[in-house]
Amino acid sequence: MGAQAINLLSKFAQIAEPWSPRVVAQLNDYQFKLVRLQGEFIWHDHPDTDEAFLVLEGRLRIDLEGESVELGAGELYVVPKGRRHKPSALEEAKVLLIEPNGVLNTGREGGPRTVQNDQWI
Amino acid sequence: MGAQAINLLSKFAQIAEPWSPRVVAQLNDYQFKLVRLQGEFIWHDHPDTDEAFLVLEGRLRIDLEGESVELGAGELYVVPKGRRHKPSALEEAKVLLIEPNGVLNTGREGGPRTVQNDQWI
Repeated sequence: MGAQAINLLSKFAQIAEPWSPRVVAQLNDYQFKLVRLQGEFIWHDHPDTDEAFLVLEGRLRIDLEGESVELGAGELYVVPKGRRHKPSALEEAKVLLIEPNGVLNTGREGGPRTVQNDQWI
Repeated sequence: MGAQAINLLSKFAQIAEPWSPRVVAQLNDYQFKLVRLQGEFIWHDHPDTDEAFLVLEGRLRIDLEGESVELGAGELYVVPKGRRHKPSALEEAKVLLIEPNGVLNTGREGGPRTVQNDQWI
């Protein structure tokens, strides 16, 4: 097939459920993941890595302990390693995550909201 | 100041010259760099790393030996490690690069188009 651009928003046609990241590209041992966010996620952290959120469409709120950050389309925020955070989106947000291979959506919190990692579309 | 979203397109107000990446955020030992591309760059490669291009505005062409890829706004392409490539933009493109700290814009090619690395805005 050869070299091909990845149209990020178009890829969301292949993603039905929210809070379930899908991998679309890899950069060394990092992955680009697309995820639909709607409603509230759980508090969690990633003890070994920072985590980048880039909003493609909609609005995302990330609660951090003691403060919060709001992101609209075209806005980026990097959650520092080990910092507890809770993403939420009143209306659906389409988000690009960038993080190392193997990072789980619920970090070390685990629990029923945890989804399978490394699902490519 | 606390946690703050980075509006990628707004940051370009602080970037005058083309082909001179500016760092806006860091993710572990990777950097998010904004760059204006206009005209043709030189053929080069990065022997130790992949390099991600995400177009924020405009159109970018990346020639690769034997093929090429065209990216519009919202499109991503990861140039594989060691693959020779030549970016170009007939009209100005605003691009987000993601790559490890320390990567030079001209890779191992060097020469007069090389700019200082690690310039934060």
